[in-house]
This record gives sequence, structure tokens and C-alpha cells, in this order.
Amino acid sequence: MDRKESAAGPRGILAAVLTPMDEDLKPDHKAFAAHCHRLLAAGCHGLSVFGTTGEANSLSVDERLAALEGLLDGEVPVKTLLPGTGSCALTDTVRLSRAALEAGAAGVLVLPPFYYKGIDDDGLFRFFAEVVERLGDDRLRLYLYHIPQMTGVDLGLSLISRLIDAYPGAVVGTKDSSGDKGRIMTLCREFPDFSVLAGTETLLLETLRGGGEGCISATVNVTSRLARHVHDAHTSGKDEEAEALQERLTELRASIEAYPVIPALKQLMARLTGNEKWCNIRPPLSELDEETAKNLFSTVPLAELL
Amino acid sequence: MDRKESAAGPRGILAAVLTPMDEDLKPDHKAFAAHCHRLLAAGCHGLSVFGTTGEANSLSVDERLAALEGLLDGEVPVKTLLPGTGSCALTDTVRLSRAALEAGAAGVLVLPPFYYKGIDDDGLFRFFAEVVERLGDDRLRLYLYHIPQMTGVDLGLSLISRLIDAYPGAVVGTKDSSGDKGRIMTLCREFPDFSVLAGTETLLLETLRGGGEGCISATVNVTSRLARHVHDAHTSGKDEEAEALQERLTELRASIEAYPVIPALKQLMARLTGNEKWCNIRPPLSELDEETAKNLFSTVPLAELL
Repeated sequence: MDRKESAAGPRGILAAVLTPMDEDLKPDHKAFAAHCHRLLAAGCHGLSVFGTTGEANSLSVDERLAALEGLLDGEVPVKTLLPGTGSCALTDTVRLSRAALEAGAAGVLVLPPFYYKGIDDDGLFRFFAEVVERLGDDRLRLYLYHIPQMTGVDLGLSLISRLIDAYPGAVVGTKDSSGDKGRIMTLCREFPDFSVLAGTETLLLETLRGGGEGCISATVNVTSRLARHVHDAHTSGKDEEAEALQERLTELRASIEAYPVIPALKQLMARLTGNEKWCNIRPPLSELDEETAKNLFSTVPLAELL
Repeated sequence: MDRKESAAGPRGILAAVLTPMDEDLKPDHKAFAAHCHRLLAAGCHGLSVFGTTGEANSLSVDERLAALEGLLDGEVPVKTLLPGTGSCALTDTVRLSRAALEAGAAGVLVLPPFYYKGIDDDGLFRFFAEVVERLGDDRLRLYLYHIPQMTGVDLGLSLISRLIDAYPGAVVGTKDSSGDKGRIMTLCREFPDFSVLAGTETLLLETLRGGGEGCISATVNVTSRLARHVHDAHTSGKDEEAEALQERLTELRASIEAYPVIPALKQLMARLTGNEKWCNIRPPLSELDEETAKNLFSTVPLAELL
């Protein structure tokens, strides 16, 4: 049995799903479920809802739980979901993770606690250990969410190793948004039974070739078709085609990354769906101003999106 | 009417109150109220509960609300309270602030949203503006909590100025934990009707002399008697005495700051009260190990505390 067959949980192309909001900046449950269906139809294998792109930390726990319910009501297949359940507060992380597990999600993507800075590995280990032990649930598939540019917290390799050893079968993977290709390759090599998903589709092909599972990315909200083609070309052994597609995918991502990514993606969704409500965004994030939006539409190849 | 008479809200010596926890790491409401009474008896003018020192961001919103109720049940005078109500999520900040206002607290101490980094002033302004407007309550006295070493967010002077202009009478002060004396002096000078409280008692006398209101400090959990003496010597015009007392206060603080401050303060409270439960602390923070605790007790002058 090769690694891919033995690995549990999400694999391939996952969108870090945007959260559409109404005029009061509350999650719009219907638009959210519709977007999830749209992403699955466009080639996503899975949906990482409630991450950085989903403005999850700008929502209360109750709002996150209600939005998860909304997805289930909207018949989004629960096995495709990898919800973010991270929070600064142990009890919030446990509550969100329990709800995701009980709903039947594929796993949970957990941030380190991100308020305090300069925390040592013992403190971080103890946080994740408490989460796993308080949940006490064999169904738990916990993915460590490494995004130091937001959290200010480094999930180092020795900490990851310690968590895998302490909780085999529970701590099963990571989303690595460091953008550090070397680190991703090291993770794939050092932890062969651990699922590694890159936080950007720019590193998709390299991650797959290195033995990783795929990517979870913000821009996949609009690049999913092309990202899926890269994945499929790779898995069917068409190396040259995969490389050419990856090159185009990297350019497409770069065209969006030239702008503040989350507002730009919401603006693009408004354009693609014809629904201006898509621009709604919670502070501290801000909608793009008119001129920037105009530039965005003229520099991003809209016809290639979604 | 001079500035001090006209200024509303907390003034003088405020402790950034520790949150005692039980074996399950839940806030211990009785011990919490008892500690508040102890601090008021030891000279504190006010109590800034649910700040960084109080591990507030390691608690869920429901736990913070229940702990506030516990203080009221424990007959802690509500007018002495300046609760921290900051959170990454707009809706949580509004909910916590509303509860504090409705209880009759002296004000609320509000962090900027701290998950996203690199947010511009427009996004930060919009966050605080939404908080003020959603509350829509004339009783609101909002203090901006500046602690960039934890939040990674800079509350710059132009943003503060903009908030004061937009919401006079509502945005009324700041706790400045930058440790930057120059900034504190500038705030006092530039915004004469704005209450400035230093985040450390090391800057107490200089802040008072510069026209600020006092300090809100972690170490005041155990240095309140001496801090109050500095304050009283200053307000009664005994300049030399105030300086000598400040010098000793600064030394006392430095002796504690040589250790991880929050665990060290909990350890000191365990020693001073004879109650080992005081050492309980939520991850990601960790209890001091035995040897460090031993060093702490031998280097901090215990007889001068509280």
C-alpha cells in the first residue's frame, strides 16, 4: 500500500473558502452553501471553510457554528469539509472541533493559540494536547495550521514530531502557509505518514511530487479548475503537461496576489456572479476601492477563473 | 476645571487582574472576586480584569461573561472595573462591551483586532467605528489597548486622533503597553482630554507628571501598596518622596520581570495566599517549573508584595 492509499483525510485541491456576508456583515448561509457547491463543481476535492480567507477569526464561535449548520442544511457533502476550528481560547477550539467531528467533517484545521507571543514548545504542545484529550474522540483528524505571518507563532519540526508521536492517528497533517518550499519538502520527507498540504497552489505540483497531498489555498476560490487540471495531469503521469499547467496556474495566482487577496477575491466573486453583496467584508479587512477594483478587473484574466 | 477633574473614568493605580483558575482551568469565580477585593484593599483605584495578564483571550466569550457575573455576585464594586472586551471578532467585542456597559463598568478596554497583520488605518478605524456604532450607548467609555508586542498591530497617533474626533466622549483613553516613554508623553501632550494610562508602573510617576492618569499593570497584582504610595506622594506634592518610592517600585517590578510575568505572578499569589491552585494557568502559558519558582522566591522581596 503506497502512502497515498494509506493516508486518511483530505487530499488534492482544497479551497480556503471565502465567507459571503450580508449587509450586516453576517455570514450569508445560502450564498455560502452555493459557493461550496460551485467550488466542488469546479474541481475542488475538498473545502477548507473557516480559515484565514474565510475571515473565521472575525466571526464569533456561535456564528461559525451556525454557518457550519447552514452548510449541512444546504447539502454540502460533509466529508468534503476541513473546517478551521482554531482560536486563542482552548475551550473555543474544543467546542468548534467537537461540532465539526460530530457533523462528520473529514478533519479539523487548527491554528496555534495566537494571542501570546514568544510561547515555547512546551506551551504549544500542552495546548494541542489539551485539545486532543478534551475531545477524546477516535474520529479526530487534526491538521496543524502553520501560518506564522498571521499568528506570529512558529510550529517547528520538533514540536510537530512530538505531537505526531504523542497522538498518532489524531495529529495527521498540516496546512503549511509559510510559503517555504524547503520546509514543505522537509515535512514530506521527515514525516512520511503525515499529510502535507501547501498553503498556495503555486507549490502544488512540487508538493505532490515531494509526496504531499495537495494544496489548500485562498486563490483556489477562483482558480480551482486550473488547479484541478494540474493535479490530474500529475496523477495520470503527464509530467510535461502538468508543468505547463502549473506555470499558467502560478501566473494566474500572481495576477491576484498583486492585490490584497481576500478583498480581491470577494470583488472577483461579485464580478463573476453579478452579485455585489459578495464585496461585503468584516473589519479589519476592507473592500477594495473603486480604482483598485477597476485595475483588478483589467489585470486578472477573468475568463480563466473558477 | 483642570484636566483631572474633567476626565471621566478610571484613574490612578489599576491592576491588570490575574484570573485564578480551578483544576479544570476554568475561572474560579470566588477566588477571582476575593482577589479583586484584596487588590482594592491594597490600594488599587481600579481593576482592569480580562486583559493580557488575565488570560482573557484564552477564555471563551461565555467564560468571560460568566466571570464578570461572578465578580458582581461577589460584590466587587462595578465602578472600579475596566474590563477588557477585545477580541478578533467584531461581534464578540460588541457582545462583551455591551455586557460590561450594562453592568455599569467604568469603561471598556478594547484591543484592536489582532489576527490579521498589515491592516491599514482605514480597516482599524472601521473596526472601532463599528464597535461604537453597534453599541450605540452614551455610557460607552472606550479605552484603546495598545500592546503591539502581542497584537502585532500599531495604533498610530493619526488613527487615535481620528477616533477621538469621530467619537468624542466615547473614545476617551488608552492603556499604552508599548513601554515607550516618548510615545506616552506625546499622547499626554497631543490629546489633553484623553486619559493615558501606562502599561507598567515603572512609568507611573513620569506618566502622572506628564498629565496622564496613572497605570494599568500586571505586576500591580503584587505591587499595589507601593504603587499607591508613589501615586499619593505625587498627588500631595511630595516630589522627592515620590521619586524615592518610584525608584523602589521600579526595582520591585524588575525583580519580577526577570521571569515569565504571568506564571511568575500566579506563583507569587500561590505563595502569598498559601493556595497552590493559584498556579493553574491555561495553555499556551505554562506554570513555572520547580527550580524557576525557587529562584523567584529567593530573588523577589516577598515581604514588600501586595
